[in-house]
Amino acid sequence: MLIVQKYGGSSVADSTKLFNVASRIANTVNEGNSVVVVVSAQGKTTDYLINLSKEINLDASKRELDMLLATGEQQSAALLTMTLEKLGINAISMNAYQAGIHSTNTFGNAKIKSINPGRILKELETRKVVVVAGFQGIDEIGNITTLGRGGSDTTAVALAAALKADRCDIYSDVDGIYTADPRVVTDAVKLDSISFDEMLELASMGAKVLNNRAVELAKKSNTVIMSASSFSDAMGTYVKDTEGLEDVNVKGVAGDKNIVVVTVLGVKANSMYIYKIFSLLARENISVDVIVQCTNNVGTVDVSFTVKRTDAKDAINIINENMNKIEATGLKVVENCAKVSAVGAGMVNNPGVAAGVFEALYENNINIYLVSTSEVKISAIIDESNLELAMNAIHKKFNMENLH
Amino acid sequence: MLIVQKYGGSSVADSTKLFNVASRIANTVNEGNSVVVVVSAQGKTTDYLINLSKEINLDASKRELDMLLATGEQQSAALLTMTLEKLGINAISMNAYQAGIHSTNTFGNAKIKSINPGRILKELETRKVVVVAGFQGIDEIGNITTLGRGGSDTTAVALAAALKADRCDIYSDVDGIYTADPRVVTDAVKLDSISFDEMLELASMGAKVLNNRAVELAKKSNTVIMSASSFSDAMGTYVKDTEGLEDVNVKGVAGDKNIVVVTVLGVKANSMYIYKIFSLLARENISVDVIVQCTNNVGTVDVSFTVKRTDAKDAINIINENMNKIEATGLKVVENCAKVSAVGAGMVNNPGVAAGVFEALYENNINIYLVSTSEVKISAIIDESNLELAMNAIHKKFNMENLH
Repeated sequence: MLIVQKYGGSSVADSTKLFNVASRIANTVNEGNSVVVVVSAQGKTTDYLINLSKEINLDASKRELDMLLATGEQQSAALLTMTLEKLGINAISMNAYQAGIHSTNTFGNAKIKSINPGRILKELETRKVVVVAGFQGIDEIGNITTLGRGGSDTTAVALAAALKADRCDIYSDVDGIYTADPRVVTDAVKLDSISFDEMLELASMGAKVLNNRAVELAKKSNTVIMSASSFSDAMGTYVKDTEGLEDVNVKGVAGDKNIVVVTVLGVKANSMYIYKIFSLLARENISVDVIVQCTNNVGTVDVSFTVKRTDAKDAINIINENMNKIEATGLKVVENCAKVSAVGAGMVNNPGVAAGVFEALYENNINIYLVSTSEVKISAIIDESNLELAMNAIHKKFNMENLH
Repeated sequence: MLIVQKYGGSSVADSTKLFNVASRIANTVNEGNSVVVVVSAQGKTTDYLINLSKEINLDASKRELDMLLATGEQQSAALLTMTLEKLGINAISMNAYQAGIHSTNTFGNAKIKSINPGRILKELETRKVVVVAGFQGIDEIGNITTLGRGGSDTTAVALAAALKADRCDIYSDVDGIYTADPRVVTDAVKLDSISFDEMLELASMGAKVLNNRAVELAKKSNTVIMSASSFSDAMGTYVKDTEGLEDVNVKGVAGDKNIVVVTVLGVKANSMYIYKIFSLLARENISVDVIVQCTNNVGTVDVSFTVKRTDAKDAINIINENMNKIEATGLKVVENCAKVSAVGAGMVNNPGVAAGVFEALYENNINIYLVSTSEVKISAIIDESNLELAMNAIHKKFNMENLH
């Protein structure tokens, strides 16, 4: 098999951890597999480099910042390769240029456009492990770019897709995908597998095991991901296309704190006003999550949305300053909210799921401010103080402790 | 004018020093010049990275070591560029790949084969300062190489030659080329200019201001070097082709300690035996400096050579073990020697120079073990304890305090 393995910064933080990772790779090689490894920068290297640049210039150009940051992954790729050599494994490190990873030139947040894996394939043919510096690409004229947060996951999946790898193993300090955060829901269990769409919803809810862009890319290229811990030999969780999408299965429950609900009251029922509200917010770079529009009983609409607590003040000020433009009649704010979500493929076609979520909340006297649904998710905005109770209640209601 | 400037590791060691260097560059730009800058890694970065690799694998492949080390220069290039941006100077950093620096694939000690300055010229046209990571190249298939000790000087001179720059300024913590080490010879003066050949002899004698490979390259491409301090505004020393090679001018005196003289006695006067001696030493990777062969009065020859003190034991053992092969009659060793050299163009055609050197040594009762001469240099091997005395005596004998 051809396997791509990705190891995060905490997995390669020092020489002891490098030897741990190298011996895992050696085992995979000795089982007869071809292996391409993607590494992040060691431990706190990226933060250290960012601080160096801040000491000099808070407004340094993003091109130069990428030039600086990309060295972190190049270093860990070289060091891991030296560790493999020490274990007698033939290996070679590659930066983005050598690995043929072509990206857009959006420095600091570039997207992979294409991969030319010629050199990698050549080295694999000579039975070498290829260790690729993650998180980086080169643009059309050879500038170094970085792929933004979680970029090494994206590198790994993109390489797996380009190489038509049998699997893309993404190692971190978490041993797989759970039905809920085990620190909150004690009954939480690790899943054997989960679909791309379910994973996307869970990841966007704060289950930070896999980067969302990487999962999206895996879905698009139908690349099987396995999420596992680099510190244990336990089986991880497969993220892949599911065959039986009709089978309803609530696969997990996730919670997201620090949410504020803002409701603009009495907006005229004309989409122009809705557009105005959200373009004002966008201009100030305020991210909005849930948006709900309700028709009230006097011919106008109430528009509710959620923002992060850190953005709430700005959002409220902007709306207040523009009440005339929006022609709204009032503003209502609910602070200290949280979002609880149940995630599972096929939910949208099964009314029983929504009912189950509401039943669990009702049985525990949990008030609901907003509800939002997608193909694979149902979310409720509730008081933050009720979040743990709600997660446990939903987990129990759908017997998730019996999942795997 | 188009000027290439090179700044060493101590000149860019921290953010304060980076700002010092950046403002020097800004001045050069504001005088209307186009500037290409070559930087070394910051301060002790290279040593730090070497230690990281040694922690993991003492026998790491040189390719991987180069991949690791090259990040040091890429970092300082990016940081210096950010510093220039902070001062309002348009600038862009480049690694070897982007700067088109093609080298052999002798990892750890690669030689520059050619430079394709297309991208640099393009950026210069847009009035940008181009900051190039020194010390590195890429081989034919895109592997990163490093150029060995002093490699950044070589990068600077090679770029100056490829760009047909008007001058190549090499900045360090020393403000030019002196007639002798000022710590040894208090009368030592800084030279306004020196020829390539004189500089080559001085550099090989331990005046470590300029890397010898860089000077050789400058000579070959007739590139004018200026050696100056990045910490002062004093005029430095020009290294360039001299017009009047016939003018004898002893330009400097240099000293080299830690030398051992080995003499193989009674070798048959047949070059085969000489060959055997030095091929034995070469096989053990022992560098030999001065070699002198004298005919003795019984039809055989005595072959003397000097080695570094650290290599002496190995050299003596090898010769002793192979006395039969060499068919020599004995071995003589003089420990604790030093080499004193007077350097100046046109010396070889002027017997007065050699006479002056010997006179200075004789007047001070300094015993001479070996003498060796080149086009521009006369060296004498003496007792190490006499080195300072000898350097001062020769300096005075040729009135070097009046040079400039």
